[in-house]
Amino acid sequence: MATVSPTPLLKDELDIVIPTIRNLDFLEMWRPFFQPYHLIIVQDGDPSKTIKVPEGFDYELYNRNDINRVLGPKASCISFKDSACRCFGYMVSKKKYIYTIDDDCFVAKDPSGKDINALEQHIKNLLCPSTPFFFNTLYEPYRDGADFVRGYPFSLREGVPTAVSHGLWLNIPDYDAPTQLVKPLERNTRYVDAIMTIPKGTLFPMCGMNLAFNRELIGPAMYFGLMGDGQPIGRYDDMWAGWCTKVICDHLGLGVKTGLPYIWHSKASNPFVNLQKEYKGIYWQEELIPFFQSVTLPKDCTTVQKCYIEISKQVKAKLGKVDDYFNKLADAMVTWIEAWDELNPSPSGIKPAELPNGATK
Amino acid sequence: MATVSPTPLLKDELDIVIPTIRNLDFLEMWRPFFQPYHLIIVQDGDPSKTIKVPEGFDYELYNRNDINRVLGPKASCISFKDSACRCFGYMVSKKKYIYTIDDDCFVAKDPSGKDINALEQHIKNLLCPSTPFFFNTLYEPYRDGADFVRGYPFSLREGVPTAVSHGLWLNIPDYDAPTQLVKPLERNTRYVDAIMTIPKGTLFPMCGMNLAFNRELIGPAMYFGLMGDGQPIGRYDDMWAGWCTKVICDHLGLGVKTGLPYIWHSKASNPFVNLQKEYKGIYWQEELIPFFQSVTLPKDCTTVQKCYIEISKQVKAKLGKVDDYFNKLADAMVTWIEAWDELNPSPSGIKPAELPNGATK
Repeated sequence: MATVSPTPLLKDELDIVIPTIRNLDFLEMWRPFFQPYHLIIVQDGDPSKTIKVPEGFDYELYNRNDINRVLGPKASCISFKDSACRCFGYMVSKKKYIYTIDDDCFVAKDPSGKDINALEQHIKNLLCPSTPFFFNTLYEPYRDGADFVRGYPFSLREGVPTAVSHGLWLNIPDYDAPTQLVKPLERNTRYVDAIMTIPKGTLFPMCGMNLAFNRELIGPAMYFGLMGDGQPIGRYDDMWAGWCTKVICDHLGLGVKTGLPYIWHSKASNPFVNLQKEYKGIYWQEELIPFFQSVTLPKDCTTVQKCYIEISKQVKAKLGKVDDYFNKLADAMVTWIEAWDELNPSPSGIKPAELPNGATK
Repeated sequence: MATVSPTPLLKDELDIVIPTIRNLDFLEMWRPFFQPYHLIIVQDGDPSKTIKVPEGFDYELYNRNDINRVLGPKASCISFKDSACRCFGYMVSKKKYIYTIDDDCFVAKDPSGKDINALEQHIKNLLCPSTPFFFNTLYEPYRDGADFVRGYPFSLREGVPTAVSHGLWLNIPDYDAPTQLVKPLERNTRYVDAIMTIPKGTLFPMCGMNLAFNRELIGPAMYFGLMGDGQPIGRYDDMWAGWCTKVICDHLGLGVKTGLPYIWHSKASNPFVNLQKEYKGIYWQEELIPFFQSVTLPKDCTTVQKCYIEISKQVKAKLGKVDDYFNKLADAMVTWIEAWDELNPSPSGIKPAELPNGATK
């Protein structure tokens, strides 16, 4: 993998997207790592409130009034009073890469006690190929001191471009409300020194707390759905994005990595509030997983946008009968793509084949 | 997971199978962990040679003459001058579980400096369910301090019985000859504190160096093929077994875990010799992986034996044209099953549905 460079990696090619309802004091701890980058802050809730950003950071901030102004009637696809609003930041970014992080996430330490530069690790993950077609038992084969093991087909060792890097969390794990209620004191103290590609055909629960992606490759799939105010569910925004994204990555031959880097997740959200937000999602996900496991995309879906529109049709056709919410969501998915294409007029869609491969070893 | 018990776990239900051509001095280091268990030693090469086993171990030893005597003409399915011969030990065992280890593998230390009881960890892995249908980003959900993360369907949290536990190696990694030649000094020093289920539909390179399995659930699939003396390839014995096993586990709803425990692999085999053994395998595996990825088993294949015979037919039909070797191998697969059923007369085949589930949390 790339060695640490004296100038920050991808300084002018990456935006950090932060959804928030409060002053961003948490950035102080991230200053050594984030200050060189541009921030896109998506202010949720009351737009008249002033969000303080520590001095020295380069940022743009959007509140609900800004979202309505930029998107007009299409603003209906952006959630309100839910961190799902962050995906507006993905849409207005002009950069190739996005890192998104929650404002209750702090710098974690590795087992040697060193501060973890989460962003740098995400960038390394994104610049390094993925290997979705066959499992490597020694995990990420491109890391120093690792490789493909005996029995790994040589034709698959070049890998495919990486679209997503999913990082993990020390301290408060990302549990659902029932698990939070049952295990209120559980903390994640296990630092697993691994990065791996999630195999093709396997779905995973993508958490938006500590997530990076290549928006040129997969951006339009990173829609965080309709959550929060006026919607019957919350806390499934990142899950929805993850399931759509994984299906599209599998179809287009792109990779999704998970594992390092860790951030320090400081406090658990209220499990009682979460239960109320989640309960329909907990019920519906039993239908959603089989749905996404069975989605197939036709060959002429050669761009993320085409794939996404096709999924929206299948959502309407197959999930509309589960609840009318999915009809609304399917419509919002289309609105999202229309808004994306308006704000990102060219190229209309990039085929992976046209893109340079990620850095190779 | 299970806590450490004062009496060794599964003492009377597990055999340790060791293929060897030399005195088993390596057992001295394993004495605290292995001595309570029964060993099945499969002596490869010259049967007139005497293999010394350190005192105090309970073992049975089979050399080539014994194999010929036990199996008669069916002994042709057991490889000679290759560690593939170990699968004879799986066949003659009467126990529910098998652990197999190479004689150049020693006790590794965990990051705290403590000796790793590899066998105990394998047993824990085998007694704990697997989760092949959906990926858990915090790895093994049944470990202390871990669980299923938000977005993991509740209906899948019971898991399925675990058939295989694939352990890893510190020091000398399990590389193929070309990688050994290119990276002669590479050592695996990364202790990854993880266990995970290999997702359904994903193939992996199964290494026989440090491997445990439930022979009641999957034993007949653990055939290590035709390798070594008189055969055009070597060093693909465990790979072959792994591909067949994974396809059958996926079909029958059984789980395969990989990760902990580590052993200390002491010395690299000769890469020049390995290259000669492997070169056809390296070429053929480019055909084998797509073959195994496309194998589908009919619904009436409800036992491992039926699945295995079906795979042998598909091997003959589809790989026979790659090389005549695969016709011979397909025949040997049938012979193996016949021999297995002779030595293990009842039950003729166990359906997973008839078996108690693995231990739950």
